[in-house]
Amino acid sequence: MADIEEQQSSSLPSFIGLDELGNWSLYRATITEFVATFLFLYVLVSTVIGYSHQSDIRAFPNAPLGGVGLEGVSWAIGGTIFILVYCTAGISGGHINPAVTFGLLVGGKVPLIRALFYMLAQVLGAICGAGVVKGFQKDLFNRYGGAANSIQGGYSRGTALGAEIVGTFILVYVVYSATDAKRSAVESYVPTLAPLPIGFAVFVVHLATIPITGTGINPARSLGAAVVYNKDKPWDDQWIFWVGPFIGAAAAALYYEYVLSASALKKLGSFRRSGSMFS
Amino acid sequence: MADIEEQQSSSLPSFIGLDELGNWSLYRATITEFVATFLFLYVLVSTVIGYSHQSDIRAFPNAPLGGVGLEGVSWAIGGTIFILVYCTAGISGGHINPAVTFGLLVGGKVPLIRALFYMLAQVLGAICGAGVVKGFQKDLFNRYGGAANSIQGGYSRGTALGAEIVGTFILVYVVYSATDAKRSAVESYVPTLAPLPIGFAVFVVHLATIPITGTGINPARSLGAAVVYNKDKPWDDQWIFWVGPFIGAAAAALYYEYVLSASALKKLGSFRRSGSMFS
Amino acid sequence: MADIEEQQSSSLPSFIGLDELGNWSLYRATITEFVATFLFLYVLVSTVIGYSHQSDIRAFPNAPLGGVGLEGVSWAIGGTIFILVYCTAGISGGHINPAVTFGLLVGGKVPLIRALFYMLAQVLGAICGAGVVKGFQKDLFNRYGGAANSIQGGYSRGTALGAEIVGTFILVYVVYSATDAKRSAVESYVPTLAPLPIGFAVFVVHLATIPITGTGINPARSLGAAVVYNKDKPWDDQWIFWVGPFIGAAAAALYYEYVLSASALKKLGSFRRSGSMFS
Amino acid sequence: MADIEEQQSSSLPSFIGLDELGNWSLYRATITEFVATFLFLYVLVSTVIGYSHQSDIRAFPNAPLGGVGLEGVSWAIGGTIFILVYCTAGISGGHINPAVTFGLLVGGKVPLIRALFYMLAQVLGAICGAGVVKGFQKDLFNRYGGAANSIQGGYSRGTALGAEIVGTFILVYVVYSATDAKRSAVESYVPTLAPLPIGFAVFVVHLATIPITGTGINPARSLGAAVVYNKDKPWDDQWIFWVGPFIGAAAAALYYEYVLSASALKKLGSFRRSGSMFS
Repeated sequence: MADIEEQQSSSLPSFIGLDELGNWSLYRATITEFVATFLFLYVLVSTVIGYSHQSDIRAFPNAPLGGVGLEGVSWAIGGTIFILVYCTAGISGGHINPAVTFGLLVGGKVPLIRALFYMLAQVLGAICGAGVVKGFQKDLFNRYGGAANSIQGGYSRGTALGAEIVGTFILVYVVYSATDAKRSAVESYVPTLAPLPIGFAVFVVHLATIPITGTGINPARSLGAAVVYNKDKPWDDQWIFWVGPFIGAAAAALYYEYVLSASALKKLGSFRRSGSMFS
Repeated sequence: MADIEEQQSSSLPSFIGLDELGNWSLYRATITEFVATFLFLYVLVSTVIGYSHQSDIRAFPNAPLGGVGLEGVSWAIGGTIFILVYCTAGISGGHINPAVTFGLLVGGKVPLIRALFYMLAQVLGAICGAGVVKGFQKDLFNRYGGAANSIQGGYSRGTALGAEIVGTFILVYVVYSATDAKRSAVESYVPTLAPLPIGFAVFVVHLATIPITGTGINPARSLGAAVVYNKDKPWDDQWIFWVGPFIGAAAAALYYEYVLSASALKKLGSFRRSGSMFS
Repeated sequence: MADIEEQQSSSLPSFIGLDELGNWSLYRATITEFVATFLFLYVLVSTVIGYSHQSDIRAFPNAPLGGVGLEGVSWAIGGTIFILVYCTAGISGGHINPAVTFGLLVGGKVPLIRALFYMLAQVLGAICGAGVVKGFQKDLFNRYGGAANSIQGGYSRGTALGAEIVGTFILVYVVYSATDAKRSAVESYVPTLAPLPIGFAVFVVHLATIPITGTGINPARSLGAAVVYNKDKPWDDQWIFWVGPFIGAAAAALYYEYVLSASALKKLGSFRRSGSMFS
Repeated sequence: MADIEEQQSSSLPSFIGLDELGNWSLYRATITEFVATFLFLYVLVSTVIGYSHQSDIRAFPNAPLGGVGLEGVSWAIGGTIFILVYCTAGISGGHINPAVTFGLLVGGKVPLIRALFYMLAQVLGAICGAGVVKGFQKDLFNRYGGAANSIQGGYSRGTALGAEIVGTFILVYVVYSATDAKRSAVESYVPTLAPLPIGFAVFVVHLATIPITGTGINPARSLGAAVVYNKDKPWDDQWIFWVGPFIGAAAAALYYEYVLSASALKKLGSFRRSGSMFS
């Protein structure tokens, strides 16, 4: 009883995480997030620009659709998240996305200070990544829209917001499932391939919603491309790519914590004590 | 001997599974199946609608085939099953499909009450998932057929039924292989990557049979899209997407139980006792 | 010493494997190979026919290239091998291909009797699988060539034979690497994901050589399609799809046994005894 | 203290690796690298030639874009690296690329002599692999550019060099992450699927930069194709495909060693001793 009270009284500082400020591991993790988001935007924007150019009938009238296709774009994005989560999971937890960081913050998996460090690093990394692609191929970058997210023709703001919410819900649901070491398995064969399903979640959400918003589900990605492209339309729609992913991420965190996790019962109370299957 | 009789006499209640009704884990698993099937239909219908729209020469005369292609559609469906089985395997067993639930029921892997709860949740989840997509993009949903399954032009009912049977056989065969913890391995290197081959099974069956029926192999998916689209043709063909998958699932369960599993011998008797390689 | 002689004297019967004839496990494995090769050909031929039909400008003048593409065909073939090896590895070793069986026979990994049972089951399964697709869609099957392998226009017999040899070498090299439990790892991080790289080997070889021969690298697949399609050209070229794969498989087995495996030294002798890194 | 000095004084011979010259394992590993790079170029060049031919409107006026697409080309290259790293990791470490070997040399993971043996084997293997494809289909090989890397129209030398640097940085970063057995995991769920993310790294870099340079990130691949194709343009640009990958590989090695690895602190000094999270 005393222990529990002590834990509760110490939960606020642990939620804020001031004590990490003196640890190199926080700064190393922050650098890792910066570099990973830089590389993510580099691959993403390069692929989108290259695809748009090679599929441009005006540019290549004799070779229509010579690019990698929207499926290739989705693979580049999902595949890069797979490898970057693989590389960074052991050092920073492999977020590479402010919505993921926010989702884990909501569930109490990452302290506030660390979350703010990560988000700042992700946004700066994304700006630099998109900036390098613009530096490499300025004309094409501007001609094909700089891979900036915005609502596509024929879709309403509500639909775009909804697509970002559901898409990010899927991503953060997978992140929670992949990283929950304590889940009580009814069937115990679940493998620990964490980065692969996370990459696939990003991949399938892009297949589903590129026609609606270009697919954000990552506010750093959306802001980075908007900053470097710097046109009105992406700026006008920018709020959708922050509000949507943050709502979706929080919903996934709450769904996981209050419905799926074994700790749900402790919070809500069991309606039948005996015979329960979970530990 | 007494033990065996006791087991046999207790097998009927265990097959029905009334005792689970008082456990939160049953309801949690049912919610999990609902949410997963909801997300599955959301991604599936969104991708099909988006692909159909962007490949529509009337809508985009200068950019033919700008969508993700039928390969991209197959990836969206198989990839989503991969990540959702990954997320739900530890909580509900990761069925997301009444045919899978039925196949496991036939093999005695899931009690009857639980199977009925799952199927109801799957159907409701599928209707809601398709409904959300219709809510997001009503015009396109109706214009491109709502991703509802029906027999494609030039194919007979028998072919469509056969394609659903074989396709579901493949899926449930993989599910059984992936979840059988007790299989006696002649070569012991088989990894336990269960959700990945299950997703790939769904993927390859779609590559093979989208031209015939659009590929169901999941009655909840077929019914959900039919309810929300609500036109004659999908309703007329709907029985195929229940009868076919249930036959295929039962056949796979029986094949696994009576031919492949180590328990086959106990049921059929060995034709040579000594020297057998299986435990 | 006595032990070694005893082993050597007993190696001939063990190579032939007569003692397995009384074991249910041999027949179960044979049934498994039959069913797996049946399912493999079913998916392969269905996908090729569906792709050919939907990409046919005469059939769909307003929707050119609506099928899954040659990449989709390659995925269907490689992906199906992945899931079928996954399902059958624990029961039959997951060959599903007479060239793989032959390669393992050459390396002494499978007894002769078992190899013959497997090959017969694979060929019969392949014929039945292609036959079911013909039964389902006879007109399209005949119109689009029944997925039968033959030398494509502009390539010589030598090139086709070479492509089959190298392609099968790659496949059997991966099979040996994936199943060698005893390999001494200079770096020990090699995972045991056996079925996935085997499926990818089939996938990449198809991407590389579909334009040359349609890609066989599996004599059961080539014979099954030829029997059901039954036209002159595939029959004339059929020998290439047996001779090529068998040469490639044997070369991979010898490469693995005499160069790569730790047992190589025992056969060839070390040119420096001390300081060797392998066990 | 004495131990440390002894280690330091013995570090030069160990860096050079003369002692390995008497070990069969060095030669076996060198043969393995030769064969793997041979097979890599065989698949890569075959796929590029086949894709170029089947997408050639002049050759197939009624079937435009019949090939596997640039996405298929990227899969062939990334997928082949996946399976070849899988096959060779236990014997040679699975480099198949002088830039990877150089990156590991910079980080002290492979001795100098071994690195030189590997690089020579990789270059010779690449030449032979491209040579076999030219032998198989000489006309098409010459007509479609022999898959040789060169700067594509509209891009500057600086952009091409930059693309090679960043691309190889991504690859070698993944290689280091995948093979670092000692990394201290903040979250411990990182699986050891090494060859798969390495293959995906190659895949996504190709999706991103094929439009710029055709994507090298492997000097053996670039030199092998240039030698066999032997035209001015690839020779003029060849330096880019050595300087770029070597800079990128060295940068990744230094990033990993001095920022990410646990040994970084020992080299740079901790700015706060106590409370650090890494071992």
